[in-house]
Amino acid sequence: MKKFMDRDFLLTTKTAKEIYKRGAEKTPIFDWHCHLSPKEIYEDKKPRDIYSLWLSGDHYKWRAMRSYGVPEEFVTGRKSGHDKFLKYAEIMPYCIGNPLYHWTHLELQRYFGITETLSAETAEKIWQSCNEQIKKGGFSPRELITRSNVSCVCTTDDPADSLEYHLKLKEDKSFKCKVLPAFRPDKAIAIEQPAFIPWLAAMEKTAGREITSYSELKNVLRERIEFFDSVGCCASDHALSYVPYAEANSKELEQIFKKGVEGKKLSTSELDKYKTSLLQFLAEEYCERDWAMELHIGAMRNNNTKMFQKLGPDTGYDSVDDYAIAQGLSRFMDSLEAKGKLPKTVLFTLNPKDNFVLGTMLGNFQSSKQAGKIQFGSAWWFNDNYDGMRQQITTLANLGVLGKFVGMITDSRSFLSYPRHEYFRRILCEIIGDWVEEGKYPENIKFLSKLVEDVSFNNAYGYFNLEDK
Amino acid sequence: MKKFMDRDFLLTTKTAKEIYKRGAEKTPIFDWHCHLSPKEIYEDKKPRDIYSLWLSGDHYKWRAMRSYGVPEEFVTGRKSGHDKFLKYAEIMPYCIGNPLYHWTHLELQRYFGITETLSAETAEKIWQSCNEQIKKGGFSPRELITRSNVSCVCTTDDPADSLEYHLKLKEDKSFKCKVLPAFRPDKAIAIEQPAFIPWLAAMEKTAGREITSYSELKNVLRERIEFFDSVGCCASDHALSYVPYAEANSKELEQIFKKGVEGKKLSTSELDKYKTSLLQFLAEEYCERDWAMELHIGAMRNNNTKMFQKLGPDTGYDSVDDYAIAQGLSRFMDSLEAKGKLPKTVLFTLNPKDNFVLGTMLGNFQSSKQAGKIQFGSAWWFNDNYDGMRQQITTLANLGVLGKFVGMITDSRSFLSYPRHEYFRRILCEIIGDWVEEGKYPENIKFLSKLVEDVSFNNAYGYFNLEDK
Amino acid sequence: MKKFMDRDFLLTTKTAKEIYKRGAEKTPIFDWHCHLSPKEIYEDKKPRDIYSLWLSGDHYKWRAMRSYGVPEEFVTGRKSGHDKFLKYAEIMPYCIGNPLYHWTHLELQRYFGITETLSAETAEKIWQSCNEQIKKGGFSPRELITRSNVSCVCTTDDPADSLEYHLKLKEDKSFKCKVLPAFRPDKAIAIEQPAFIPWLAAMEKTAGREITSYSELKNVLRERIEFFDSVGCCASDHALSYVPYAEANSKELEQIFKKGVEGKKLSTSELDKYKTSLLQFLAEEYCERDWAMELHIGAMRNNNTKMFQKLGPDTGYDSVDDYAIAQGLSRFMDSLEAKGKLPKTVLFTLNPKDNFVLGTMLGNFQSSKQAGKIQFGSAWWFNDNYDGMRQQITTLANLGVLGKFVGMITDSRSFLSYPRHEYFRRILCEIIGDWVEEGKYPENIKFLSKLVEDVSFNNAYGYFNLEDK
Repeated sequence: MKKFMDRDFLLTTKTAKEIYKRGAEKTPIFDWHCHLSPKEIYEDKKPRDIYSLWLSGDHYKWRAMRSYGVPEEFVTGRKSGHDKFLKYAEIMPYCIGNPLYHWTHLELQRYFGITETLSAETAEKIWQSCNEQIKKGGFSPRELITRSNVSCVCTTDDPADSLEYHLKLKEDKSFKCKVLPAFRPDKAIAIEQPAFIPWLAAMEKTAGREITSYSELKNVLRERIEFFDSVGCCASDHALSYVPYAEANSKELEQIFKKGVEGKKLSTSELDKYKTSLLQFLAEEYCERDWAMELHIGAMRNNNTKMFQKLGPDTGYDSVDDYAIAQGLSRFMDSLEAKGKLPKTVLFTLNPKDNFVLGTMLGNFQSSKQAGKIQFGSAWWFNDNYDGMRQQITTLANLGVLGKFVGMITDSRSFLSYPRHEYFRRILCEIIGDWVEEGKYPENIKFLSKLVEDVSFNNAYGYFNLEDK
Repeated sequence: MKKFMDRDFLLTTKTAKEIYKRGAEKTPIFDWHCHLSPKEIYEDKKPRDIYSLWLSGDHYKWRAMRSYGVPEEFVTGRKSGHDKFLKYAEIMPYCIGNPLYHWTHLELQRYFGITETLSAETAEKIWQSCNEQIKKGGFSPRELITRSNVSCVCTTDDPADSLEYHLKLKEDKSFKCKVLPAFRPDKAIAIEQPAFIPWLAAMEKTAGREITSYSELKNVLRERIEFFDSVGCCASDHALSYVPYAEANSKELEQIFKKGVEGKKLSTSELDKYKTSLLQFLAEEYCERDWAMELHIGAMRNNNTKMFQKLGPDTGYDSVDDYAIAQGLSRFMDSLEAKGKLPKTVLFTLNPKDNFVLGTMLGNFQSSKQAGKIQFGSAWWFNDNYDGMRQQITTLANLGVLGKFVGMITDSRSFLSYPRHEYFRRILCEIIGDWVEEGKYPENIKFLSKLVEDVSFNNAYGYFNLEDK
Repeated sequence: MKKFMDRDFLLTTKTAKEIYKRGAEKTPIFDWHCHLSPKEIYEDKKPRDIYSLWLSGDHYKWRAMRSYGVPEEFVTGRKSGHDKFLKYAEIMPYCIGNPLYHWTHLELQRYFGITETLSAETAEKIWQSCNEQIKKGGFSPRELITRSNVSCVCTTDDPADSLEYHLKLKEDKSFKCKVLPAFRPDKAIAIEQPAFIPWLAAMEKTAGREITSYSELKNVLRERIEFFDSVGCCASDHALSYVPYAEANSKELEQIFKKGVEGKKLSTSELDKYKTSLLQFLAEEYCERDWAMELHIGAMRNNNTKMFQKLGPDTGYDSVDDYAIAQGLSRFMDSLEAKGKLPKTVLFTLNPKDNFVLGTMLGNFQSSKQAGKIQFGSAWWFNDNYDGMRQQITTLANLGVLGKFVGMITDSRSFLSYPRHEYFRRILCEIIGDWVEEGKYPENIKFLSKLVEDVSFNNAYGYFNLEDK
């Protein structure tokens, strides 16, 4: 019997322990996709308590609480932070097998040195212990980032964003971790959403001029890409149900844009044409600047209209979509490759049924300009757990070259979520350790330790041109 | 080497054995979805022989026999029960890895005390031993239910059904197991099927009046729901290829209904509109009475027309469909939630590609009115095997709160299939035992034994309001 | 710690080792679907070096090299065989977890006796050792087939093919391995492809007359089927994104054919009608001759237009499609079954999301005329790896009768790929060994050794009527 979450957590073989120690344990973190606030990093305020660190914004935890039957007033409602924490503690033991169980206890161990497990019985004690430690210090955004051995993070930023805090952070030489923006023009793509028109207004304000045509929208977006690039941006990010592919001429596109601006209803065919064109335009721009394009495919968002009207997006009402994605994605990528304009691309899926579609799509568009130019992104969101990570890693290994994988990201809004990198690395080492000890791969500890270090850090560092930032 | 199907069958760790013993072994069964005949339970006739218990109606066994190449005369044809049994015995050893191998031997062990394995060599001996025991008694429906420690079953009943035998069973205080009806209006939904018109006639007979409009159909269905409710019904059940979502006004719906009654061909769009509306109406009625709505999604039935014409439905010619289901299901549930009329819902899929769609759909619509209000149903039909159960349990654990799961059902037509609950419980305990012994969950035997008992029985007992029945 | 790829490679239990030894190790190979060239077998030329054996035509290896970032000149370009081999060696250690890692080292061990692993460091030495051995002999097509204990192969042949080399091989009594043609009329089905019109011209040449109508095309295809049958053909093969089902009358079909011949654009509906009809026609012809029909479903080919124009098809730019396939496949098979004309059928999928659709489709159309008449084909192409094989075998076991499985094929263009049969057999034995030692199946070594032999060879031998060839 292995003790719960001990030193060798998730590592069962000698090989796994050895390569973890040599290749992963002290390797820094490059978190190349997250949702941290650059403002919060810049301002570096102390958190009030463990509630504000853990529960005030984490929709993963909210979903679990609701699934257990916790009333909304204890989730996002009027109850105190203390009472909400107690409810969260109460549900913990029932979340057996859920990644939250591991995240929660890893965070308690790594940042607070607490090895007791969270439950209704221990809740009060842990609440107090955490809050005392928080008061003593070491839990501000920069402190947590530094304690976590993070050398660089890429945030997620709207094209209309001024990048004010990225610029300030760039000038502040006291903070060693690089904080780079990433370009996320989802609102430009989602012309059918109510958010499109206000977003366009914000872009006009940023650009200092009116955007009266599709062609002008592209000009402004290009300017923003140039600006982001000057601030150190090396990646873009897109969230899509599926990747569309429908060609159209510029006259059609202008008409569709006009209808969108006027708030008129657009057909699926019109939407596909507009989105294809804009994605192609953006991809070409990324390619020119050697940015990576991240495609996050397969989320179905805001499924509960009542709660969306109450709480807005990103509050725990999203789930997994199941469109057929292979044809559109292939044609989209091919249309860029044919022009020599396909950027480095990282393909993520929320639906594990697509693991094979993505894992084999990579091989269609590789290039000697970049090792592993097209990547299969790590297990994302609902897949970001022990089984999902194993599945992504072994699928990638079976279908591609694992040694060139750019590895893990947190995709998180929390400054406490870096142990997910540790979790990923432990799983990676365990898988490799098993292969070695089962006679499926030679026992070459030195090489494998280096490979683990590559996947943990070096590959991404090279892929995103970090040496130039 | 573990002995075949011994005391610790499927249990390999100390923890698994311990929590199985404490939480599962003696816990009663609540089989909240099955296809048993209330008439047979009421009449409680002795079976003739092991053929009539095992092979006369079990299309799982028929399929396996056909796959082995057994002629139809030995499957559903003119051969004697004895000869059919011998054929079934002959194929058994070749069904290695098939759940039938385990069901068959569990049933031989648990009900007949036979530990020999079934094969061509042992067939004659086992035939005789079973039949001698059957003659001695203990194998009538009620005896088998009682021997299996079943405290309640929910059958599957057409709205037109008089529930005659449920009413009789209710009055019969000698039988301790509760036998409750469940409402299955598939024939009302499937307006395009040849069975619709005769079904409507049966409903008219039951209602004692003509059903000349869609509106009147709804009235009669509401009356039947009220009647079912008065007989103790706490659940409905729907079989659907996919959950449709298409809004329509009442005029359109009446026209569609009229076309259906006249046997005219309906378009996919018309069918989706009719089905959406009727499902919404029914769901609201279920919600009002706090019934659970079970959605069984993804079967493709009666694929072999020739055999359908010969043998009818449910004879072993069904398989797995693969529609995209996420969008329709989400919108359907949201349309009810928006009105505050979403009932407790159990989502089953026949296609494991949908496990993530369902497992994440739950979280969109939970509520404090009921812990685990939206459930991911246990591994169903073709998934009802060792690997399928493991996959459903771990998927649910990763995506939701396993501790609130309402657990296993047999979905069976046979009085001998209760060992499937045992099978499920052993797998559940084995999974949890592994987590504990691998250091992934603390060794809290008392809590985990209770959790196993909850998933095995208590959760469903509360979920279906059994205390009120 | 097990040594890398030792005698007991992939076999960890006593049972697995025993049944492998008794049922698999010396059992001959019947490779009933491959892409070997009958001309090369007939001519039996010595290969020049390990490059020409391994790298000159293997798009699996090319994809891996490109994924690592190897420039195309080292893949299919102007660099020497020696330099290309060195590049391949360099990427090997990074391909951890990829089936290429195992294929490569199995082939080095089995054919060259080399147990060192391939890497940049060992490349030069292995290059020399292989080439010296090749020079000494034993590496011609026939020698490799004989050394691999292959008793029969089925190649893949176009209807227009003269089967010249099959006829010559038939007459050559010195070569013990049977070399049978298989009928692959993909170009007849793919009327929308540029290759259709030249193919039709080739068929006219073969037939010695013009093909001016759809009806005449069918006549010529029937004649070719008769001819193939006379040369020993027992199987056909079709590659399809999905199996279409759309009925049409002969007038429509003639019009569609005419449009196709004229190179006009056909709608999806027209294509589905034409393909349905032609597939039905062919299937009936196969059925009459008791051929098996192999359906390979789910490849999405030639995704990279630029490279397609440079290198043509089958050069490593294919990936996995994700259409919904259940409805069409079911109706297509049912349309044949209804007429009593459904041939023996082997269903392969490239997309593991379809494993359950196929695995349950089998059971709809079995027949006593042939044990396991409808088969779930072994893990194919991108699935042809440790995890994919395990998944296919356990899925089939769960859903059908594993004991009647027709087993493995290489689907390969290489004379060195027979160790894939060994790999498959080891995995099969390991799975069964686990079941036995975990108490899930009785320890009946004799029966299980026979079952392994059946799946490895005997079942396919019977299924394809090899005794008559």
